[in-house]
Amino acid sequence: MKRVDAIYPGTFDPVTNGHLDLIERSSRLFGKVIVAIVVNPQKDTLFSLEERRSLLERSIPSGISNVEVDVFGGLLVDYARQRGAGVILRGIRAVSDYEYELQMALMNRRLEPTIETFFMLPAENYSYLSSRLVRELAANAGSVEGLVPELVARALETKYGRTSE
Amino acid sequence: MKRVDAIYPGTFDPVTNGHLDLIERSSRLFGKVIVAIVVNPQKDTLFSLEERRSLLERSIPSGISNVEVDVFGGLLVDYARQRGAGVILRGIRAVSDYEYELQMALMNRRLEPTIETFFMLPAENYSYLSSRLVRELAANAGSVEGLVPELVARALETKYGRTSE
Amino acid sequence: MKRVDAIYPGTFDPVTNGHLDLIERSSRLFGKVIVAIVVNPQKDTLFSLEERRSLLERSIPSGISNVEVDVFGGLLVDYARQRGAGVILRGIRAVSDYEYELQMALMNRRLEPTIETFFMLPAENYSYLSSRLVRELAANAGSVEGLVPELVARALETKYGRTSE
Amino acid sequence: MKRVDAIYPGTFDPVTNGHLDLIERSSRLFGKVIVAIVVNPQKDTLFSLEERRSLLERSIPSGISNVEVDVFGGLLVDYARQRGAGVILRGIRAVSDYEYELQMALMNRRLEPTIETFFMLPAENYSYLSSRLVRELAANAGSVEGLVPELVARALETKYGRTSE
Amino acid sequence: MKRVDAIYPGTFDPVTNGHLDLIERSSRLFGKVIVAIVVNPQKDTLFSLEERRSLLERSIPSGISNVEVDVFGGLLVDYARQRGAGVILRGIRAVSDYEYELQMALMNRRLEPTIETFFMLPAENYSYLSSRLVRELAANAGSVEGLVPELVARALETKYGRTSE
Amino acid sequence: MKRVDAIYPGTFDPVTNGHLDLIERSSRLFGKVIVAIVVNPQKDTLFSLEERRSLLERSIPSGISNVEVDVFGGLLVDYARQRGAGVILRGIRAVSDYEYELQMALMNRRLEPTIETFFMLPAENYSYLSSRLVRELAANAGSVEGLVPELVARALETKYGRTSE
Repeated sequence: MKRVDAIYPGTFDPVTNGHLDLIERSSRLFGKVIVAIVVNPQKDTLFSLEERRSLLERSIPSGISNVEVDVFGGLLVDYARQRGAGVILRGIRAVSDYEYELQMALMNRRLEPTIETFFMLPAENYSYLSSRLVRELAANAGSVEGLVPELVARALETKYGRTSE
Repeated sequence: MKRVDAIYPGTFDPVTNGHLDLIERSSRLFGKVIVAIVVNPQKDTLFSLEERRSLLERSIPSGISNVEVDVFGGLLVDYARQRGAGVILRGIRAVSDYEYELQMALMNRRLEPTIETFFMLPAENYSYLSSRLVRELAANAGSVEGLVPELVARALETKYGRTSE
Repeated sequence: MKRVDAIYPGTFDPVTNGHLDLIERSSRLFGKVIVAIVVNPQKDTLFSLEERRSLLERSIPSGISNVEVDVFGGLLVDYARQRGAGVILRGIRAVSDYEYELQMALMNRRLEPTIETFFMLPAENYSYLSSRLVRELAANAGSVEGLVPELVARALETKYGRTSE
Repeated sequence: MKRVDAIYPGTFDPVTNGHLDLIERSSRLFGKVIVAIVVNPQKDTLFSLEERRSLLERSIPSGISNVEVDVFGGLLVDYARQRGAGVILRGIRAVSDYEYELQMALMNRRLEPTIETFFMLPAENYSYLSSRLVRELAANAGSVEGLVPELVARALETKYGRTSE
Repeated sequence: MKRVDAIYPGTFDPVTNGHLDLIERSSRLFGKVIVAIVVNPQKDTLFSLEERRSLLERSIPSGISNVEVDVFGGLLVDYARQRGAGVILRGIRAVSDYEYELQMALMNRRLEPTIETFFMLPAENYSYLSSRLVRELAANAGSVEGLVPELVARALETKYGRTSE
Repeated sequence: MKRVDAIYPGTFDPVTNGHLDLIERSSRLFGKVIVAIVVNPQKDTLFSLEERRSLLERSIPSGISNVEVDVFGGLLVDYARQRGAGVILRGIRAVSDYEYELQMALMNRRLEPTIETFFMLPAENYSYLSSRLVRELAANAGSVEGLVPELVARALETKYGRTSE
């Protein structure tokens, strides 16, 4: 029986090693993993939609063939249905994350009972890692080495007007 | 590509409608779902291991062919490896549940990095439901209708010395 | 001895079935239940103060005679004192809600020790429901049926420029 | 319209100033407040049922005429129904308390939808106070002054074989 | 061996009695306590940087000689290193505070493993107290007596256009 | 001015690498760090008091001269006072840990206001680590390598009747 496809939605502003860890781990378990960047016009982002998509696509190891990067607007469950995905994946770091995620997932189940939300663990050494912390570090010239892929580190330096020598 | 198999471990003393909801939902997403009763000699249970296995087996709808009930002792990841399962499933109700589950899952990942733990949501109308609450209700002659399958309700009545007329 | 009056404060942008459940339940226990819309000039709302008041008034079942909709600014305890209410009612969904509510309630007790805050449970099928989720759903053309009264559903459609045929 | 009666259930092993604060505050809001000691044969208590009842009765200020101490077994909602009480009162200190209380309250609502659970705040200076901490303090000769009524302090000294000179 | 110096960072908009309690308690345990106001251009504050510094300096009891008020921008660990401080102090009120603090502290440890974060308890009667609640109270003409020093109360009155007679 | 001494209390059944990390980090910040094993006759432990003391003493690196292992009964604050310690150190892993710790620390502050409780972070790779999980692993023949010192691993093997070849 064919494996189920999964959606991994997020803002990815920018993608971190925590996101990539989850993408790699889930790619071994599902048919296709669709990394879906949420289009949210109200929310200011550091990187444009195109930049975020490009950073994601170039960060995913080329050996992983069943991962696709996409962009969506509107309701997540509508997008999941349209893509034929049976699973929504969410990483959860902290308890307060979890509560909000729980509310979203219950709402999504009500809207579409056949799509399941799975919560996945962050790797322990990424438990404190978020895109926001990465942006704050980079804005204050702190090192983001080990937290994001090398190409994301360089993109952050360019954004904040520094060169990487 | 063949679907991944999943383990759903627990004490199931007794199985509730919340467990069955999770079993049915996950059976649509994985190759096989192995419902694995933990053998824990230190823990007193209301139902014997054999009773719990029988209640589980008889409660799972016969139309679901890819669910198997089993019993295991020792480390969960050893059992998962031996059964060739790539996923451990856990239902989480409350935040305090979640914290303990998080610790177990991080430990299990350290012991066996290729096995993933997925947390699943309870259906909203089972969000307060646990085997312990079911036992307390039954012990005090409260109605467990709608919380457990009919056959479990009858087994509880027998345990607590009541007849179901 | 005369029943105590209660204040149920909130933004109600818009009123949901979760709010109405709490209003109906509390109306059976207190003398009068004053549903008090907070005037907060800093906060952007989807519906104007007058719209929110009108939606509330038309949503409360006409059979409930001891519920009154009102509007207030300034400190909640000053308003409660002025209305002669002895109780403040708050619904709590999640743990993170609860923490903030706890801080507000302790502050209110310090300001006015004779007014008590009671926390009430959401009905289990509304545990994920909030005005914000309702607005997000409606903004993305998701169905809000069963989450808000029919007249609120129509008001949301009008706001978001859709007709309900 | 007659005020609603409320049940305040607990183990009260022994009653603390935190319990008494809640009893006094709630007595101003309800018709009668029934302080109901749970009979739980499985649970070891420091004080016998009769001792706990007597300590409670002697600790409640004589000026409060609408508080009654009682004892009950079986399901809380059955007892509440039998006593004609419309409200169950619970004090909550910490978030982890709250989660368990939430599960119990949802279960109780399912068993008896017309009985409402209200959660009340502890006074801020009793936020860390529990019967268990009081017993631990007393067992280690720590001072319980200000945490329990004087007569409870003396009863603890007697239990732990000390005299109060 | 010389005592270690500690940094106590924050926005202090304005300083509260909760902050002062923590400053006094920690001043007895460390060599020097540096109260460091975070310069955050993105964040709107009620009081200017200079006002916050002045309110802090005038609020700290003159008998405490080892406390210094300073201002910093950029990364906290860079500032701590530059000041030769071995400890970062943080007060935590609620569980949700704690989770965010935990993430920051783990990030700071990664950036500078030799600097330790210590979490300190609020005094129980300040457990609900925050600068935000103080500002909200003052904005609505609520009394802030007992929550902030007298000179901060007067500064709040001036900000909100009231005189203190 | 002389550094303050700190107490690090616990059951240490057995000591883990998480405990040792906290001991080493705190030894750089305080005059003396007293690792204090709680004598608790009611609690069953895997290792005897003497075994736990010996494992602790042999696990602490010999280069750290200001750490002392001791044993105490009764109230922690009485012991701290008697030893002249100004600080109690506690490691906190999870939110539910934290709540209980908060209650204990508030109680201890009431009993002895001059003694301060500091909460320290676990290293991120020990965030899931507890003595209980170590015992469960060892009981089920799971590897405890990297979680406890080598000599503790050997002691666990002996307890559970295995030899380490």
